[in-house]
Amino acid sequence: MAAKEKTLADAFYETLKDVYYAERQSVKALKKSAKAAESADLRQAFETHAEESATQVERLQQVFEMIGKSARAKTCEAMQGLTAEMEEDLEDFAGSPAADAVLVGCAQAVEHYEIARYGTLKTWATQLGYKDAAKLLDQTLQEEKRTDELLTKIALTINVEGTAAAA
Amino acid sequence: MAAKEKTLADAFYETLKDVYYAERQSVKALKKSAKAAESADLRQAFETHAEESATQVERLQQVFEMIGKSARAKTCEAMQGLTAEMEEDLEDFAGSPAADAVLVGCAQAVEHYEIARYGTLKTWATQLGYKDAAKLLDQTLQEEKRTDELLTKIALTINVEGTAAAA
Repeated sequence: MAAKEKTLADAFYETLKDVYYAERQSVKALKKSAKAAESADLRQAFETHAEESATQVERLQQVFEMIGKSARAKTCEAMQGLTAEMEEDLEDFAGSPAADAVLVGCAQAVEHYEIARYGTLKTWATQLGYKDAAKLLDQTLQEEKRTDELLTKIALTINVEGTAAAA
Repeated sequence: MAAKEKTLADAFYETLKDVYYAERQSVKALKKSAKAAESADLRQAFETHAEESATQVERLQQVFEMIGKSARAKTCEAMQGLTAEMEEDLEDFAGSPAADAVLVGCAQAVEHYEIARYGTLKTWATQLGYKDAAKLLDQTLQEEKRTDELLTKIALTINVEGTAAAA
């Protein structure tokens, strides 16, 4: 299809494939992060959100179905970059007093990527008249925002230990 | 330095270098986006934020100075991924009715990356007792949030045209 013929519906479908890839990667990253976390609160937050993310993947499959397309993932370079950065940081700070703080920082970067993308998808779904899809996307968007807020709260506890150990 | 000896101060410095890279890339991406935008409002928003981002780069240089380090950038793979995705999308949708909507979506993904990173840096600066740095980082954080909100508002105008043309 030539670029000039592309519509908002095409943009929606392309971004949906991108987020489908990112969300499935996110489930893996969260399980890895839960194993790496020292703080019990943080481990719990990652485990809970890994389960939530599995449901979010299913919601995306429902959205594909609603627009009459089969669920397909498209490599998301942003998520690849975020994951690469996370793995590098985990390695660099493993076992250090700052390890959990670094883990939270990386997780929040992923959360914010998802917040941006689900926000865009929700806006487009509404404008395209995909009412049910917009509702599902908003459900996930609210979960991502809540997870980000929870991580901010946890950061305030665990970082203090990192600072103390560094002093 | 062995991983076990790394502190929150090290995490702060590493993340600062990462954001310094990302912010400088962001200035370039915003100038490119301003040229590509069809909507006058959107072009204006990108131009204004490109200027703001140049100031944000200077603020980061001040933060480096405050912690007694020279300003250095470290390749940020997340930002590289975001930029690669943006360039691909711009090419795919150039000249289409959805071009501006796609442009806004990509810009908001970058804004959210920055919101996550400046949020983390601000929290760490506070906990490390870098009071002046925390203030500067918060100034930038608020600008990023305002830009994201403005882009959400603009998206509601321009997308409608994209949808109409697609109908």
